[in-house]
Amino acid sequence: MTGTAIGIGVGPGDPELMTLKGARILSGISVVAYPAPETGDSLARQIAGSHLPQDATEIIIRMPLSANRFPVEVVYDRAAEEIGVHLGAGRDVAILCEGDPFFYGSFMYLFARLAKNWPVEVVPGVSSLTACAAVSRKALAALNDVLTVLPATLPNEVLRERLTATDAAAIIKVGRHLPRVRTLLTDMGLADQAEYIEHATMEDEDHSTLNELGDAKAPYFSMILLHRRGNAWA
Amino acid sequence: MTGTAIGIGVGPGDPELMTLKGARILSGISVVAYPAPETGDSLARQIAGSHLPQDATEIIIRMPLSANRFPVEVVYDRAAEEIGVHLGAGRDVAILCEGDPFFYGSFMYLFARLAKNWPVEVVPGVSSLTACAAVSRKALAALNDVLTVLPATLPNEVLRERLTATDAAAIIKVGRHLPRVRTLLTDMGLADQAEYIEHATMEDEDHSTLNELGDAKAPYFSMILLHRRGNAWA
Repeated sequence: MTGTAIGIGVGPGDPELMTLKGARILSGISVVAYPAPETGDSLARQIAGSHLPQDATEIIIRMPLSANRFPVEVVYDRAAEEIGVHLGAGRDVAILCEGDPFFYGSFMYLFARLAKNWPVEVVPGVSSLTACAAVSRKALAALNDVLTVLPATLPNEVLRERLTATDAAAIIKVGRHLPRVRTLLTDMGLADQAEYIEHATMEDEDHSTLNELGDAKAPYFSMILLHRRGNAWA
Repeated sequence: MTGTAIGIGVGPGDPELMTLKGARILSGISVVAYPAPETGDSLARQIAGSHLPQDATEIIIRMPLSANRFPVEVVYDRAAEEIGVHLGAGRDVAILCEGDPFFYGSFMYLFARLAKNWPVEVVPGVSSLTACAAVSRKALAALNDVLTVLPATLPNEVLRERLTATDAAAIIKVGRHLPRVRTLLTDMGLADQAEYIEHATMEDEDHSTLNELGDAKAPYFSMILLHRRGNAWA
């Protein structure tokens, strides 16, 4: 009897936004794996930690700050190997994923490696997309709307083209791209309809319209939501 | 002291995919409102029912089968009025929403009416989008991918244009549009990368590649997910 790897979306930040299923599985798990920065705490572990049994074995997948120094493929290969040892011994392994496992997450790297040899299950979670919409207090999209999710890492010409061809958009991974994206949206006359949200559902959550936003730096967990029709459904 | 209206995303179908926060709020609520068809049971009520106190007052918002016979605006006006009576008397009212309240949901109609006069909170939920990705066992999108959500109700020329300009797509509300969308995707050479999912996370969940799918009718809760690069991350 081999164990099962279970990718669990732990939600956007508020520990109460975990699913009942995720919490139930974690409360009976013997091995848990999660991503963490090169130094410091894991956000996924912080979100889900209260559900873990005290004697659970923890596999910390530390991501190198610079991919040049140490290829991430090696990190995932090693993590999959370590997880596989437990699976082979019949122990289930929960893999914690910020937000949802399959929405722009790194879980796919482990999934691809593990699913070749082991049973893998996926428990979806609340994504940053719907968490940010709740914080912004506006519908993401409705009825016949086209909704486009755009990583801020894309070049301006791609962003401009896609923004022109959609009703609603979520610009994710804003971070250090904020000044450029903000200028682009202002140039396109879209800044009035744009909401900026950071750390949605976390203790230091903040949001404002893009126009009202000061010159503060955006953290990695930040998003811009916009809708061409503004609040048309009111 | 007025009450607060709380829109709660109850997730895609599996009652265990409700959030801890949603379950906690419902277990202490005195009034709950939810959408239902003209006759028959409410899916949102079925998902969340086990958390409701036995003596909770229930407001059933029945949607007319034909909008011509009875405008939906009147339905929402009346529901908001009935909810408002409880809020005015200091009672919180939970409003159950399938999936997530702000992801193509009808909650926005109530939100727009209630937020003018009362405090309204929104608890995000697991959307059908990430639930379907979990069922299909493929990442929705990753890295620099553009992800486009397209209602199947859109005309072919719009779907074709948007599908050409995206890396990944979720075609939602497939239902009776399945034959037309399927022909379009086949014509575009995208059927091989397309996964069809119905009733994700419910007891009668089903999924297959679009090519393998028989001639069965698609229910309202069905989705097609596709990615231009297929399983490129494996």
